[in-house]
Amino acid sequence: MRKINNERLLKLLDDFAQFGKTENNGVTRLALSNEDKLARDYFIQLSRQADFSVKVDPIGNIFVRREGKYPKLSPILVGSHGDSQPLGGRYDGIYGVLAGLEALLSLNDYQIETERPIDLVMWTNEEGSRFSPAMMGSAVFTGKLSIEEAFRKQDKNGITVESELERIGYLGKDDFLNYRPYAALEIHIEQGPILERNHTDIGVVSGALGQNWYQIQLDGLASHAGTTPMNMRKDAGIGMAEAMMEFNKLGMKEIKHQGRVTIGSIQLTPNSPNVIPGRANFTLEIRHPDQQSLNRLDKEIYKIVNNISNKYQLDAQIKQVVNLPPLVFNSDLLRIIRQIADKLGYSREDIVSGAGHDSCHLNNEMPTAMIFIPCIDGLSHNEQENITDEWCEKGGNILFNMLLKLAS
Amino acid sequence: MRKINNERLLKLLDDFAQFGKTENNGVTRLALSNEDKLARDYFIQLSRQADFSVKVDPIGNIFVRREGKYPKLSPILVGSHGDSQPLGGRYDGIYGVLAGLEALLSLNDYQIETERPIDLVMWTNEEGSRFSPAMMGSAVFTGKLSIEEAFRKQDKNGITVESELERIGYLGKDDFLNYRPYAALEIHIEQGPILERNHTDIGVVSGALGQNWYQIQLDGLASHAGTTPMNMRKDAGIGMAEAMMEFNKLGMKEIKHQGRVTIGSIQLTPNSPNVIPGRANFTLEIRHPDQQSLNRLDKEIYKIVNNISNKYQLDAQIKQVVNLPPLVFNSDLLRIIRQIADKLGYSREDIVSGAGHDSCHLNNEMPTAMIFIPCIDGLSHNEQENITDEWCEKGGNILFNMLLKLAS
Repeated sequence: MRKINNERLLKLLDDFAQFGKTENNGVTRLALSNEDKLARDYFIQLSRQADFSVKVDPIGNIFVRREGKYPKLSPILVGSHGDSQPLGGRYDGIYGVLAGLEALLSLNDYQIETERPIDLVMWTNEEGSRFSPAMMGSAVFTGKLSIEEAFRKQDKNGITVESELERIGYLGKDDFLNYRPYAALEIHIEQGPILERNHTDIGVVSGALGQNWYQIQLDGLASHAGTTPMNMRKDAGIGMAEAMMEFNKLGMKEIKHQGRVTIGSIQLTPNSPNVIPGRANFTLEIRHPDQQSLNRLDKEIYKIVNNISNKYQLDAQIKQVVNLPPLVFNSDLLRIIRQIADKLGYSREDIVSGAGHDSCHLNNEMPTAMIFIPCIDGLSHNEQENITDEWCEKGGNILFNMLLKLAS
Repeated sequence: MRKINNERLLKLLDDFAQFGKTENNGVTRLALSNEDKLARDYFIQLSRQADFSVKVDPIGNIFVRREGKYPKLSPILVGSHGDSQPLGGRYDGIYGVLAGLEALLSLNDYQIETERPIDLVMWTNEEGSRFSPAMMGSAVFTGKLSIEEAFRKQDKNGITVESELERIGYLGKDDFLNYRPYAALEIHIEQGPILERNHTDIGVVSGALGQNWYQIQLDGLASHAGTTPMNMRKDAGIGMAEAMMEFNKLGMKEIKHQGRVTIGSIQLTPNSPNVIPGRANFTLEIRHPDQQSLNRLDKEIYKIVNNISNKYQLDAQIKQVVNLPPLVFNSDLLRIIRQIADKLGYSREDIVSGAGHDSCHLNNEMPTAMIFIPCIDGLSHNEQENITDEWCEKGGNILFNMLLKLAS
């Protein structure tokens, strides 16, 4: 099988890591920032130098086309996002864009004319850390979010998406209304520890976990820590602690099934060392690959909170704030990924994505699949995020051969 | 036995509740604020009208003297503090000052000349909510804190105690170096629920709980809630939750012995819903009437944290930040309080103070005792803080007869 030029891909990754580079060799390249603009400009410059055509849609998604023998055939869509988390890593998102670019450049090197056109996309604002929601570019692209609503979204300084798109020159005019790709592919770092732990080269992403997010509030009675006997307390903090332990137990029972339960954010009131907490607000999220299990866990959560409310004499409120069903990627594409990995002699395993990706939106509209490569210690959204040259190359080769296969 | 004029005491309480009155009928009268100055000025005005003499020491403690037949006899010291918590109650502190004032005014009404002088004190900054430490006036008075150090203490706006004392006109010049009271008394609301629950009129405060305060930090690994399997996490939040449950169990075992264990303040990092907490910082305080039990609990705390550190692969740090031994008030004074309560036909019980009070400092230097009256639902440091007219009167009568007995 043919191979990419990994030296070039590594250099591309290095070059793009300069846009928003942090002290600790990470990247802060927030959506529609000056750093994002620099990365976009350079991406377009390199694409034009390679004789690819460039389009930009109204939300700023950039589409770079390498034309095929039959321009009217539905194209292959490949790519990922260009923005990063604050103090994020050098690979999250941009690896997928640049592995795609490297694949197109390698097609040039090999002087291969594919039958189908290949469109390489750099999505706008996947991270959502500056403008909510995350995966904004692909949400607008697939009609899940209206362009008007996206334009109005503001960062914490009240600056809108629309004004920033205009300011950095990416309020595009190109229209993708009748755009129907043959298939969509995205390669991404795993952002978790599984592939590395299992010494697996390639993760064949079978789907994404469903997610339920909750905000829970427990109300007891704030009172003096010195003067209130233990048996006359309504301690919202202790109620919360017991709920956390019970929720965590639910999660531990789902290890084999890839269920995940997390309490990430807590606020006690008044949060003073010598006052018994009168109120506890905390978040809970559960993720699971199967909807029946999500439903069962949902019921158990209400039961646990109800029991704790009674046991500690606390008023309880549960508000569900996110409800995303589990998702399964296209089985034909997954089969081809497995075949190519086997032909290349790369170890591979099926893996479920715990995180959301632009491909989750695409999957509603077109045959879609994702490929993961390992990352060191599973670290992501972190300046220490890292991959090996070997993982980089193997991922690039899989993507290149997928494009070659699908576009021919 | 003689009685006070409770109508007058209730009116005094109402009048002083105007200084810093809040929307919800509470009080915000922070130490050395304009509201504090108004209360001080009015306290001195009423005292002078009743022919009492007034002295102010350098930290702003106000001493009002009703002279005795033998001015050279060591005086009885009685009083409490005039400041409040932010959004605090109408009785915390000021009740003790005004019950003392009412007792002196009643002595006038009855035209009683006591043998000993009686000094009524309004302490500066007991609450510590604007300037740390709490109980500042009595700490300086007893030599536990130097006046120079107290002067330098700043509020959150960088304003010093010294400049505020000067601004409101309470940087006093009177010297109490050779001051040796015969006994010291303080009456205060319980700030807890015990007396009301037991339908007890008077709490005979046998002592104060010892206190150990700790700051605990657990360090795990912040990682993506979606991509990190349950069995590959180092979740500092779950470690903290288990520690909270174990600490609370320790406290529950000490109910009979009046031990108290509280986790009041928590900070997770990064405290984001979809990130596994990498760090948990939280406070722990244990209070107990007996030092051996405090020492035993201290050991158990280290054991619990150590076990959790191992179980969840977390780095743990424990820092002890407060270490106050338990304290016992003067047994002769306590006996007299019990006798007077019995003669008045008031129900009474011995109670241990869970909170700190100015009397805790005085107890190191002179025979000291405290009296509690109930407060509704145990609420204090709260605008809802309240007492009944009957509790008010019974407390006033006990204090009045104590002064009569001790000063005669």
